[in-house]
This record gives sequence, C-alpha cells and structure tokens, in this order.
Amino acid sequence: MKMLRTLLWTSLAAASVTAHAMNGVDGAVKGMGSTNVNWQPLPEMPPIPADNPVTEPKVLLGKTLWFDKRLSKDGSLSCNSCHNVMAGGDDNRPNSIGLGDKHTDRSSPTIWNVGYQSVQFWDGRAKTLEEQAKEPFISPAQMAMSSWDALLERLNKMPTYVEMFKASFPNEENPVTPDNIAKALATYQRVLNTPNSAYDRYVKGDMMALTEQQVRGMKTFAEAGCTTCHNGANFSGQQKEGGFFMKFPLFSGSDYDKKYKLLDDYGRYDITKNEQDKHVWRVPTLRNIALTAPYLHNGTAITLFEAIKVMAKTQSNIELTNDQITDIAMFLDSLTGEFPVQTMPRMPAALGMTFTSKKK
Amino acid sequence: MKMLRTLLWTSLAAASVTAHAMNGVDGAVKGMGSTNVNWQPLPEMPPIPADNPVTEPKVLLGKTLWFDKRLSKDGSLSCNSCHNVMAGGDDNRPNSIGLGDKHTDRSSPTIWNVGYQSVQFWDGRAKTLEEQAKEPFISPAQMAMSSWDALLERLNKMPTYVEMFKASFPNEENPVTPDNIAKALATYQRVLNTPNSAYDRYVKGDMMALTEQQVRGMKTFAEAGCTTCHNGANFSGQQKEGGFFMKFPLFSGSDYDKKYKLLDDYGRYDITKNEQDKHVWRVPTLRNIALTAPYLHNGTAITLFEAIKVMAKTQSNIELTNDQITDIAMFLDSLTGEFPVQTMPRMPAALGMTFTSKKK
Repeated sequence: MKMLRTLLWTSLAAASVTAHAMNGVDGAVKGMGSTNVNWQPLPEMPPIPADNPVTEPKVLLGKTLWFDKRLSKDGSLSCNSCHNVMAGGDDNRPNSIGLGDKHTDRSSPTIWNVGYQSVQFWDGRAKTLEEQAKEPFISPAQMAMSSWDALLERLNKMPTYVEMFKASFPNEENPVTPDNIAKALATYQRVLNTPNSAYDRYVKGDMMALTEQQVRGMKTFAEAGCTTCHNGANFSGQQKEGGFFMKFPLFSGSDYDKKYKLLDDYGRYDITKNEQDKHVWRVPTLRNIALTAPYLHNGTAITLFEAIKVMAKTQSNIELTNDQITDIAMFLDSLTGEFPVQTMPRMPAALGMTFTSKKK
Repeated sequence: MKMLRTLLWTSLAAASVTAHAMNGVDGAVKGMGSTNVNWQPLPEMPPIPADNPVTEPKVLLGKTLWFDKRLSKDGSLSCNSCHNVMAGGDDNRPNSIGLGDKHTDRSSPTIWNVGYQSVQFWDGRAKTLEEQAKEPFISPAQMAMSSWDALLERLNKMPTYVEMFKASFPNEENPVTPDNIAKALATYQRVLNTPNSAYDRYVKGDMMALTEQQVRGMKTFAEAGCTTCHNGANFSGQQKEGGFFMKFPLFSGSDYDKKYKLLDDYGRYDITKNEQDKHVWRVPTLRNIALTAPYLHNGTAITLFEAIKVMAKTQSNIELTNDQITDIAMFLDSLTGEFPVQTMPRMPAALGMTFTSKKK
C-alpha cells in the first residue's frame, strides 16, 4: 500500500520508499525558521468536558443520530453526508451539498480527530463540539429543518430513540432536547480518532516507520515554518482557551490571492466584526490530509502539492522547490492514521414516517 | 418494543398484545377467497446464480462499492443514499433524490431480501440483480456518471479497489469491469436478508411469536386474497422464470384511481409496449413493510392502513372494515425481521480526488 501510494506521487518527483532512521530533523536550513519542534503522537482521547463524559449509550446514540437522514427536512441528508466517517471524514468537495442541491460556501472539515481542535467551524464560531452540533440541523443550506421543535417531534415519534436518550441521560425526565442531541453527537465525535499513523509510530520510537523521504519532508515542514501553526498532536495548534487562529494569507499580494480566491472570504471577521479578524481562520488539522482533497477553506487547491506551495508562500513568504514540496507531501501522507472498525447503527423504526419534496 | 409498536397502532383500533396460538388461519370467511396458504419462513439464502457465487472478498467489495459516493458524478450519492441498509432498505420517500436534486418517478424499493425477488425494478426491466446494478450509476436522475469509462477511471485511480477486484475475481487479468462491479454489488445484496421475524418464528412452530391480533390479521390477509400475489417466503410471489407480475389496479374505476394516481404510470408497458402490460407491476415484498412508508410504486399511500385499504379494493374488489385493516397491519408488522450486524466499510484512499458541481 505504501508502495502504491508512493507511486502516485512519483509524477511529482522521484520518491524513495526505503525506511530510514530519523536524521537531522532538529537541524536548520539557511533562510528557514527554527526547527525546535515538540513532535507529539496523538493522545488516546481528546479533552472530555466534565459535563459531558463519554459513555457507551451516548456514543451509540450519537452514532445513530449521526447517520440518520430523517433529521433533515426531506429525509435525504445526515451529518455523515458531508462528513463521511467511512472515508477521510469529509466529502472531497470544495463545498458541500445541502438540502435541495444548495451548496455551502466553505469546504467541509474532516470529522476525524475533531475533538482535538481548539474551536469548531472554519471561523471558530463554535467553542465546543456541543455548540457546533446544533447548527447544521436548522441551517437552510444544510439539513434545513424548519425548527428544533420539528426535529424533536420526529425523534419523539420513534420510541427507540426516546429509550436511547433515556439510557444516555438517565437522570432527566424529558431527555429528548437540543442540548442532549448535541451532547450525544459531540460524544460520538470524540471517539472518532485515528491513532498509530506512521508519523505517530515514528515519534514514539519506531525509526523504520517513516521513509527517508518522509523524514526529509518532516524536517523541511518544520524548517519552512509550517509548525508555527500546525503544531501539537493534531497539527492544529494549541488547544488554548478561545481557539487557535491565524491570518491567511499572512503575506498577501502574490498571484495566489486571486488564483485561489484567498481574499473573497473574510473568515472570522464575519463573526466578530473586528478589523483584525479579516481573513483569520481556525488552524485545521493535517491528520489524514492525504484523504481530504481539495484543500483550503474554499477547496480551491486541488492537490496537496498545490496546497503546500500556496501555504509556504502566503504564510512563510518562501518559495519551496518542487522536491521540497514533494517531500512535505510524502511526510503529510504519513499522518494517515488507523481508522477504528465501527458497526453500522440501526435507524430506530419510524412507523409511517414519510418525507416529500417538490419535483424539479 | 412490541408494546410500543402496538401503541402506535391503537389510534386506529383497539389492539391486543396477548400472545396467542394460531387458530383458524385455515378457515374461510364468507365472501372471501380460499385461505389454503403455504406459509413459508425465509430461507437462509436467496437463489445464488452459478456464475456468481457468494465469496467473502466479493461481499466486502460489494459493500464498499455500495457506500461509495465517489461513484456518482459530484461525489454526493451512493447506492445507500436511496436504499438505506441502516434503515428499512429504502429512503421513506415517494420518490428518490438523485444528483442535482432531480427526483425519480417511482418509490425506491427496499434492498433487504431483494435476492428473493423474481425480477428487479418496479417494472421488472432487469431479470437479475447483476443487470439491475448497472443502471443507477449512469442514470441521469440518479448517480449521473457520464459514462462507464468515467466510472472505471475513478476506480482504477484507487489502488485498494484494484486489489479488491483482483481478490474477488482472481482469474481475471483486468477485473475492474462493469460486469464485475455488478457481480460484487449483487453478491452483497444477496446477503442482505432479515430472517427470524415474529412471522418466521411463528410458522416454524413458535406459537407465542404472534399476538392474537396478528394471527387474526394473518387469517384476514389470506381470506382477503392478498396471498394470491403476496405469497412465498418473501411475500413477493413465486420466483418463476420471467418474473412474477400483476396488474394494479386490477379492478379500476374506484375513487382510488385518482386519489392515489394509480393510472398515471403504465408500469411494465413502458418496457414491453404490449397492451396487456399496461399498469402491470412486479409484486413487491412485504417483509419489513412497517419500516418502508410511503407505499405503492408512487408512494402515494402514506400509511400501511391506507395501502391495505387500497389494495383490498383494487386487487380483490372488497371493502375491509377498519378493524380488519388494522389486524392485517399488525400482521404485516410481524414481518419485520432481524437485521444482521454489519461493520462499516472503509472507502479506499483516493489521493487528490476532488468533486465539483455548480452552485445554485
């Protein structure tokens, strides 16, 4: 498999598949930034909020809700429609397709390892997974339910759901609430983690886990300043209070601004209306990035190669050689982790439930 | 659970949940048809064609293809989008939503127990599951791929898929073909069976498996002539060569023709152009029917109650009482079987694969 993946990259540059001991990762290359990087493997679990512990009934409820298309207006979309857990956790599109073929403005972020993100949504408008989980159901461009009441009414029509909510929130009299829907979904998402990537095995001491080229790419990744933002176990920056954000493009004025439409979306500014938040974004994870093309918040970079080239120019103001870019791409490929085996949830029976929408 | 289901029906008529021994199923009610019915439980497996045996690699390949949205033009739809195996095997809609929010003309049939159907599609235009499997990929109102070549090109870009095809068809040099895609999908579908429903346990000798009301409904179901067509282990008629078809409505002229739009669709006639095939349809299964509202080929009957009332009138030319209809509905609820636990397939990695479509 590694061989095959590598072959796909050889159109870009000659790639070595020889496993190789770490060398020179802590060195420095002239003109590039510091490489004193604290490389961390993925912890077993992301932070768990005290008021929403991970329990088995809640994970099962969350997984069931996650796949339930009946929680969208016309019964055609579930959370998984745009954040596909059977794939890289996204939909491989520059934007996502919501109800009635509406298209969202930004590219769907991966759901894998999302518990390690400091804030949620590209613009960080939700502080927690619980807060995030409430938006897509009633967003007209997504699942488009007319109201929370309409959603609760559907859930309450399915006795198995009511039982699952009771099992998940045993101390509550009427547990079918928006807050508990969000809590169950957040709990499911917190177990969607992909440990044991080649990178993780390498930083834990398995010197054969990365190829020579990947080790070289790791070094260049650090030297090019990528770790300024993409640091920590999830390569999404520190999990600090308030979120980890960065301006993008930091160095504007290049041809890329127009080519990749980098100035079309104000990002966090749209939420805060603070001038300094213009073009400011949450730093996304790089884990499983090889699986989640296209790239950037607007999906304008089709290949990882392009994305690396753009980021080096706009964030570090450097031009990487094709070889350096390819090395980094191969290193990023080592961030593809192990996806846990999951059983499919059964959708609770809904006797006589029917969804309609107008023909076009 | 049975208690809860029953409660949902009590708005129609008082329902007994007392388990009860079979009585009088072979009796006859004045003015109704013979009830000499050969009640059969679901066999372990449907017929398997000699040229497409069920093998483990083929089931896995079929399951993976089944859930792969990347086999649709814009990456938004898989087979499972309209035939949801996590639910009753359909989408609970009168029609299905294809690419670009196009709506199909007929209601998506359940995929569960589909191997027991004598022919495929509502109009029986495919004799086998293999033949059926080839249509949705390139149908413009469904997954809308521009051509088979485009589909094969995508699959060939994913090395894991190529390996899976080789493991499934070990004697073929280039196994990534439309025929083999269809064979793998048909194989997966042949293992999607739901045995051990309350009905199955009852006819195998567990006299406590059905309630008194369900036994009464079973008797009325036979007496009303439903088993003329809905017979055999799958309640979809005999698996005879050429398919098991029936005219619907057989007795036209009632108010139902207009109310349920029964004469709007010529059914099998559109395929054969034979006058006697006007309004002729494949007989659908009744297994898991409680989960697959709405009903009829056009989904115009929202509840099972309505569907039973319409069918009795149009097929047997009788008017059932509300109590009789409710009894039959409760009997049909006993056809909900056991859904096998399935693991989620992992979508093979597609490096740099991106899907786009125009914003609306």
